[in-house]
Amino acid sequence: MRNRPEVLVFDAYGTIFDVHSVTGALERLYPGKGAALSQAWRTRQLEYTWLRSLMHRHADFSQVTAESLRVTCAAHGVECTEAALQALLRTYRELAPFPDALTALGALRGRLPLAILSNGAPEMLDAVVRHSALDAAFDAVLSVEAAGVFKPDPSVYQLAVDRFGTARDAIGFVSSNGWDAAGAKHFGFQVFWINRTSLPVEELGAAPDHVLRSLDELVELVD
Amino acid sequence: MRNRPEVLVFDAYGTIFDVHSVTGALERLYPGKGAALSQAWRTRQLEYTWLRSLMHRHADFSQVTAESLRVTCAAHGVECTEAALQALLRTYRELAPFPDALTALGALRGRLPLAILSNGAPEMLDAVVRHSALDAAFDAVLSVEAAGVFKPDPSVYQLAVDRFGTARDAIGFVSSNGWDAAGAKHFGFQVFWINRTSLPVEELGAAPDHVLRSLDELVELVD
Repeated sequence: MRNRPEVLVFDAYGTIFDVHSVTGALERLYPGKGAALSQAWRTRQLEYTWLRSLMHRHADFSQVTAESLRVTCAAHGVECTEAALQALLRTYRELAPFPDALTALGALRGRLPLAILSNGAPEMLDAVVRHSALDAAFDAVLSVEAAGVFKPDPSVYQLAVDRFGTARDAIGFVSSNGWDAAGAKHFGFQVFWINRTSLPVEELGAAPDHVLRSLDELVELVD
Repeated sequence: MRNRPEVLVFDAYGTIFDVHSVTGALERLYPGKGAALSQAWRTRQLEYTWLRSLMHRHADFSQVTAESLRVTCAAHGVECTEAALQALLRTYRELAPFPDALTALGALRGRLPLAILSNGAPEMLDAVVRHSALDAAFDAVLSVEAAGVFKPDPSVYQLAVDRFGTARDAIGFVSSNGWDAAGAKHFGFQVFWINRTSLPVEELGAAPDHVLRSLDELVELVD
């Protein structure tokens, strides 16, 4: 490790919470298409965060998540009724945490300050964190809404600096999203990329400081 | 039509030039994987333009096209040798124009000013336009490089306003990329979305003024 971080800041969706835990609900509504719809929905959701940010037309993650679901259903030729939309958005507030996230957060808690820095709107984040009984694990749950733009705009990463009053490289930033890891590294954080599925490093000009296969390895590294 | 545009500004990649005309070259290098690699390369290429713009880490489209190809090959488990990379980047300078683009540009030429506004770096655009003998068709070929950021940042669309000195809604903006159409519409252009493959309208808060199935319909509409 470069130097022991003073604070650990975690991405939420994809890092602590499994966005593809909506697959079951999608499969029940659209038999045979659950996995494909989940992948396509997530891809479009992220694209919309980047596009709205670049167009200077921010909308919160709750709206973007709904809009990306609607266009995904249309592109796959399945009907997105209002009832289906509401059911799937509820599911998004009850995403399952990754097993290694629960054990790692349990092990790290109390040893250094822990925070979430996420694209999620505050009430979505509150709901999903509480659903996993993780609310006591974090010293801060920071939403991009305070910056009015999505990751990887630098002003989002600045929110963590402002909250903890530390130097950028004293913050250990933990994300499974390779593009988020790149944005955080460009910003100046010490970056831990959790690469659970053996993806290649993104070619975005900023490799992560550490590539780990799970959050369990993060605990070992911080020890 | 809302009102006849004074100028027509075209997107290049995907609208005039078929980005998937690289499929043959990919298939020869990576048998059985050409189509999948072409789709994945294009997706990653666009993602990288949005991500680099948001991270305030611009690199030109030539670099982004190379970097997105490398990571795409790595993600698909195929080797991207320097020779393969160079061959594929050359192919990108010789993309085939869509047949309806050639007939439409021929029919529109001389009737109102025509321009390209593209993510492409100037020398890439010059090459691909010249390869199709389209250089005489356009009054201007505008690259995002003058703005130092990619579409759909509003400062890119502003380049066309600056070049032609017209009101925003006097510019007819023509793109097959739904997200580009949304960005241009938010900016204030009159937008013609060329939807050749019956995709749903993007849910980005700005529907195009016109949805056409090919550039042939644009000629009829401007008549």
